[in-house]
Amino acid sequence: MAVRLNSRDAGFEAAFAALLAAKREVSPDVDAAVARIIKAVRDEGDAALKRFSQEFDRVDVASLGLKVSDSEIEAAFGQADTEAVEALRFAAERIRSHHARQVPQDDRYRDAVGAELGSRWTAVESVGLYVPGGTASYPSSVLMNAVPASVAGVPRIVMVVPTPDGVLNPLVLVAARLGGVHEIYRLGGAQAIAALAYGTETVKPVAKIVGPGNAYVAAAKRQVFGVVGIDAVAGPSEVLVIADKDNDPDWLAADLLAQAEHDTAAQSILITDDAGLADAVEGAVERQLTLLPRAGIAGASWRDFGAVIVVDRLADALPLADRLAAEHVELAVEDPEAVLAGLRNAGAVFLGRHTPEAIGDYVAGSNHVLPTARSARFSSGLSVLEFMKRTSLLRLDAKSLRALAGPAMVLAKAEGLEAHARSVAVRLNL
Amino acid sequence: MAVRLNSRDAGFEAAFAALLAAKREVSPDVDAAVARIIKAVRDEGDAALKRFSQEFDRVDVASLGLKVSDSEIEAAFGQADTEAVEALRFAAERIRSHHARQVPQDDRYRDAVGAELGSRWTAVESVGLYVPGGTASYPSSVLMNAVPASVAGVPRIVMVVPTPDGVLNPLVLVAARLGGVHEIYRLGGAQAIAALAYGTETVKPVAKIVGPGNAYVAAAKRQVFGVVGIDAVAGPSEVLVIADKDNDPDWLAADLLAQAEHDTAAQSILITDDAGLADAVEGAVERQLTLLPRAGIAGASWRDFGAVIVVDRLADALPLADRLAAEHVELAVEDPEAVLAGLRNAGAVFLGRHTPEAIGDYVAGSNHVLPTARSARFSSGLSVLEFMKRTSLLRLDAKSLRALAGPAMVLAKAEGLEAHARSVAVRLNL
Repeated sequence: MAVRLNSRDAGFEAAFAALLAAKREVSPDVDAAVARIIKAVRDEGDAALKRFSQEFDRVDVASLGLKVSDSEIEAAFGQADTEAVEALRFAAERIRSHHARQVPQDDRYRDAVGAELGSRWTAVESVGLYVPGGTASYPSSVLMNAVPASVAGVPRIVMVVPTPDGVLNPLVLVAARLGGVHEIYRLGGAQAIAALAYGTETVKPVAKIVGPGNAYVAAAKRQVFGVVGIDAVAGPSEVLVIADKDNDPDWLAADLLAQAEHDTAAQSILITDDAGLADAVEGAVERQLTLLPRAGIAGASWRDFGAVIVVDRLADALPLADRLAAEHVELAVEDPEAVLAGLRNAGAVFLGRHTPEAIGDYVAGSNHVLPTARSARFSSGLSVLEFMKRTSLLRLDAKSLRALAGPAMVLAKAEGLEAHARSVAVRLNL
Repeated sequence: MAVRLNSRDAGFEAAFAALLAAKREVSPDVDAAVARIIKAVRDEGDAALKRFSQEFDRVDVASLGLKVSDSEIEAAFGQADTEAVEALRFAAERIRSHHARQVPQDDRYRDAVGAELGSRWTAVESVGLYVPGGTASYPSSVLMNAVPASVAGVPRIVMVVPTPDGVLNPLVLVAARLGGVHEIYRLGGAQAIAALAYGTETVKPVAKIVGPGNAYVAAAKRQVFGVVGIDAVAGPSEVLVIADKDNDPDWLAADLLAQAEHDTAAQSILITDDAGLADAVEGAVERQLTLLPRAGIAGASWRDFGAVIVVDRLADALPLADRLAAEHVELAVEDPEAVLAGLRNAGAVFLGRHTPEAIGDYVAGSNHVLPTARSARFSSGLSVLEFMKRTSLLRLDAKSLRALAGPAMVLAKAEGLEAHARSVAVRLNL
C-alpha cells in the first residue's frame, strides 16, 4: 500500500516534505575501486580492459575482439525478433523527426555601433554512449541517446556495452545501427568509461560520455568529468499523475504500475481532488499487481515510495507538483492545457486521458532520458543541444572598436586590469 | 619567456601534447572541511552563518544584517566612481540586448498520425549567484551572471558576496542592481553555498547556483549538486591568438598580456606561420611587461604557461586550435571568416585585427563566462539557456494513441516491461 495523504490534515506539510526528502537510492561508495580501475586502464590500455572484462563479465574480449564487427551487427538483424526490429525502425524515425526540430539556429548580426556579434553551434567532435548490460540493456535507450547525437551531426558516435558471459542482446546492436552509432565495443563498467575518456590502443578517446549505468559507471563518469563532458546522472524513474474525478481508475492504476515496474526505487504518485477516485485507483493497483510478471518489483516500489494525495481543489495540486518536479507528469484532467499553464517544473508532461507515459518511452518521438530526483527544477531532458556547443563570435573594425573602447577601458581600470585597457588603447593610439 | 615550439621539429607532437596536459591549477583537498561547514549550516542555520563570517571574514553579520538593505544599494551608486557606474550601465544594456536573442522558442506541432508534440521552456524558479570578495570581486562578472538570469525571467535572483573585514565594493552592488538581482546577502565561502542550497531562517533556498569562487566554493558546489543545479567549474583564463604575418606585434603582445595578468595560472598562446612575427611578439611582450602594474602575475603566467608556436601554413594552426579548445581565440588574420569555418572548438572567437578579447570581457554584449581547460570541446559559455529548462510535451487522443500503440507495446514486451504495454492496451481495450 502506498502512503495516503490529505492536504486538509494537520500533518500534511510535514508528511509531504518527508515524501520530497525520501532517499530512494543508496549509492555505495565505490570511488576508491573506480579510481584504481581508471588508473589501470590509463597505465595499461587494452591489457587492462581484457583483464577487467574477464574478471567482471567472465568474457574473453581478447579472442572475441574488443570491437563488435560489422558482420555481427548485420547478423543481429537476423537474430532479433522481426516485429521488434520493425518497431525500433518506427521509433527511430519518429525520434529523428522530432529531434531535428531541436537543432539550434546560428545567429549573426551587426548592432547599432557596427559591432558584429554572433553565436555559432557546432557538434561535439566525438561522443561515447554507455549502454548497461543484462536486464537493464534497453534498445529503446540506445535510440534515445544515439539519435540526438546523430541529428546533432556528431562525426564519431561510439557505444560501449558489457557482455556478461559473452551475451549481447541483438536488439541493442540493431538499435545502435538504426541510431547512427559508428563504433561498438564490448566493454562495461568503470573500465569502459576510462577507455572512452583516456583512450587505449583500440579505443580512441571521446570528448563527451552519456548514458545510464550502475554505481561504478556513475562514479567513473564523475571522476573523468573535466577530461571529458558527461551528462546528468540518472536516478530511479518517477511519475506524478494529476487526475480529476472523471477517470477510469484502471487506466491510472496501469500508469502508476508501469512506472513502478522499472525498479523497486521508482516512484508513482497520484494527486486528485476526488477521494473516491483515490480509493478506486488504490484498489485497481492492488488488483492489477496480481497480473504482472514484475509484480515483486512494482509492488515494492508502490509500497515503499508510492503516494496518493487528495487535495481540495485541483489547483492545489500545482504547487505540490512544482515541488515534486517529477520526471513524468500526466495530466488526466478535463482541461490539461489550463493545468499545464500553471505548472513550472516537470521533465515531460503527458496531456489528457489518452496519453499514457509509456508511449513517450518508446515511440512518441520525444526523448525518454529526463531529469529525475527533482532535478526538473533546474534541468531538461536529453536533446540535440546536449551534443552541440555554442561558440560566441565578435567582430569589430576600427570604428566600432572606438565606439566601445571608452566604457571597456573604464571598467578594466576599475577592476585593476591595466593590460586589458592597454590592449584596447594600443589599437587606437589612445 | 614562454616556451617556443616549431611544428617542423621532431619533438613537436610530444611538446604540444605536454602543453595540452599541463596542469595549471592545484586543487587543495578541502572536501572534509567543506562537508563540516555544510552540515553546520544545515543544522544551525543563521547562527552558523554568523559564526563562519566572524571566523573567516572577520565580519559581524549579526549586527550588520545578513541581507544588504535597499538603502545600502542606493548609497553605493553615490559612493562608486560615476564614470564606472555609467560604463556598467552601458555594458548592462548591451549584455541585455545580446542575451535577449538567446531566449529559446517554444515548439508545438501535430504530426502525421495526429500526435501533438512540443517543447516548452520555462525559467528556473530561483537562482543563487556567487560573487567572490576581495580582489576577485569583479562587477563585470556580476552583470555577466545576473543579466542572463534576468533575461530568462528567473523570478528570484539571489546574490551572495563575502565582505572580508566588512568591505564591499560599491560597484558590485551597482552591478547587482543594474543586472536585476532581487536579494543580496553578505555571505561567502562554503557557508554561502550551503545557505543557498538548503536555506536558513533568513536565506530561502534556490534551485540553481552559478558563479565563480575559490576551492572551498567549488567543493561546496560539487557537494550540493543534485540538491540544486550548478554551473560548470571555471578554471584559469586562457587565450589563443592565431596570427598571420601582417600584424602589429605590439597589439598581439598586449592581448597575450591582458590574459596573463588575470592569474599566474592563466595561459596565453600565439600560433603564427611567421617566425619573424613570433620573435617580434616575444620581444614586445618583454617590453610591455615592464609597464604593467600586474607585471609579477602576467610575467609568471607567460613564463610558466605561455607558448609561441610556429607552423608552416596557417591551416596547420586549425587542428592544434581544436585540440587546445581555448576559452578565447583571436583570429588576427587577413580572412578570419575562412579560418573560423575550419575551427570547431572555442569558447569565443574574436575575428580580425581590431577585435581585442578585452572588449568581450566588458561591453561587447556577449558573455565572458566561457568554457576553460579544454572544455570548449564539449560545453558552451554562459547563456540564457543556463537559466531555463525545457519540458517535453505529448498529447494524444484515442486515434493517435491507436496509431502508436502497436510498436510501443512490441518494444515494451521486448524489454520485459509488461505493465508498460498494459497501460497502452487498457485504453484501447486491446
